Amino acid sequence: MSDANLFPGVRVILVETTHPGNIGAAARAMKNMGLTELVLVNPYNFPNEKAVYRSASAEDVVQSARVVETVDEAIADCQLVIGTSARERRIPWPLLTPKECGVKVNAAAEDNQTVGLLFGREAHGLKNEELQKCHFHLNIPTGEAYSSLNLAMAVQVICYEILQARLGGSHLPPDEEVWDQPFADADAVEHFFSHLQQTLIQVGFHDPDNPRQLLNRLRRLFNRVRLDRMEVNMLRGFLSAINKLGDKRDP
Amino acid sequence: MSDANLFPGVRVILVETTHPGNIGAAARAMKNMGLTELVLVNPYNFPNEKAVYRSASAEDVVQSARVVETVDEAIADCQLVIGTSARERRIPWPLLTPKECGVKVNAAAEDNQTVGLLFGREAHGLKNEELQKCHFHLNIPTGEAYSSLNLAMAVQVICYEILQARLGGSHLPPDEEVWDQPFADADAVEHFFSHLQQTLIQVGFHDPDNPRQLLNRLRRLFNRVRLDRMEVNMLRGFLSAINKLGDKRDP
Repeated sequence: MSDANLFPGVRVILVETTHPGNIGAAARAMKNMGLTELVLVNPYNFPNEKAVYRSASAEDVVQSARVVETVDEAIADCQLVIGTSARERRIPWPLLTPKECGVKVNAAAEDNQTVGLLFGREAHGLKNEELQKCHFHLNIPTGEAYSSLNLAMAVQVICYEILQARLGGSHLPPDEEVWDQPFADADAVEHFFSHLQQTLIQVGFHDPDNPRQLLNRLRRLFNRVRLDRMEVNMLRGFLSAINKLGDKRDP
Repeated sequence: MSDANLFPGVRVILVETTHPGNIGAAARAMKNMGLTELVLVNPYNFPNEKAVYRSASAEDVVQSARVVETVDEAIADCQLVIGTSARERRIPWPLLTPKECGVKVNAAAEDNQTVGLLFGREAHGLKNEELQKCHFHLNIPTGEAYSSLNLAMAVQVICYEILQARLGGSHLPPDEEVWDQPFADADAVEHFFSHLQQTLIQVGFHDPDNPRQLLNRLRRLFNRVRLDRMEVNMLRGFLSAINKLGDKRDP
């Protein structure tokens, strides 16, 4: 479709959606996460300007949505069909978490399969006969007090996990993050600590004969932060300015 | 608050939200995931029936939302502040993925800390000075073609990951190990920053007419370290000792 489509062949299928605003919001949620193939099964009120409005910059997804009459039509060429479902069903079905769904969809997409993700009606979800057309059911865990997600929110969570699974492992551990300054080396930090200690004594805040835990705690503080070079320079500049003030006072 | 609140002390803070519908949708997203503490900073159009309508069965969350004037007021008693941010900032900040955020928020909640999750304006996000009040920034990965999530969708993804981390029994990252001191709240840290700024001016190291990035960088340094209460007291004691030295010099 376009650069916006990171998952060709993976389609979101909204079944008998009542509120066109939800269609637009779902389209935006999809495009945010790199999905653009939207199929609408017998939507109640579509096309509709509310769908366009709520889609924001995903109007292209709304405009190119395929409208069909039945779920069968929507999934006819799919090799993998996953349906969202509330928890308890009479007949248990293979159940995926959103995360597992993300992994499974990526695996299928890499295998050039066509994937259908079915989302049911706002008020009643998917019917049993629709759920029985699915290879897997999918349940989004919630708090017990209120388990019914808005339709577009459910689309958001599932598409988020699909992109997460794609990006997986690409995230650097926190201390490898890009930083704008090189980290200070231990020697520079050690000189800073000496300078800090002298200055604490100079201003009368630290008594070397009664040290308590002051220096240890300051050491822990500044080591915890992993100082970069510019920070060490700033802190030492500050200490030097204090030193000068003290020197002028006691000539 | 109620059985619906699985995360007492964890608050979602929406800053200058323009569309009341987004407030309602965010409230629903929160309650679905077991969060109920909502704070609105200077909302544009609230109370509003659209907020109630979009909240569906989370009307209680909307009705009990606390409305305040400033971000400072919203985070004053927080020991952990996390702000959502678009990717590129001039000064990089410690960055969390949504999943890491979920783990961190759970660790803080178990430690009875008060946590503030800041979400910015629909059109412009959080301002730089608001982001600089945060310990961590949070970025939701997206496709490149369309990176701007709807506000309530962002709330949904983050609250989803918070509940996921609770359900997943995840391990604490090393820096969340048991600490011997309670963490300082945002209000105390803000007073420290004011005191630091005055002292930098007093010793002639900081020129308010030519600030460059000095204060921003010091803010980043001390927010990155997540100061505990005793550290704030020590640092303020040091600053007071410097002030006294300066005062003696200029009687």
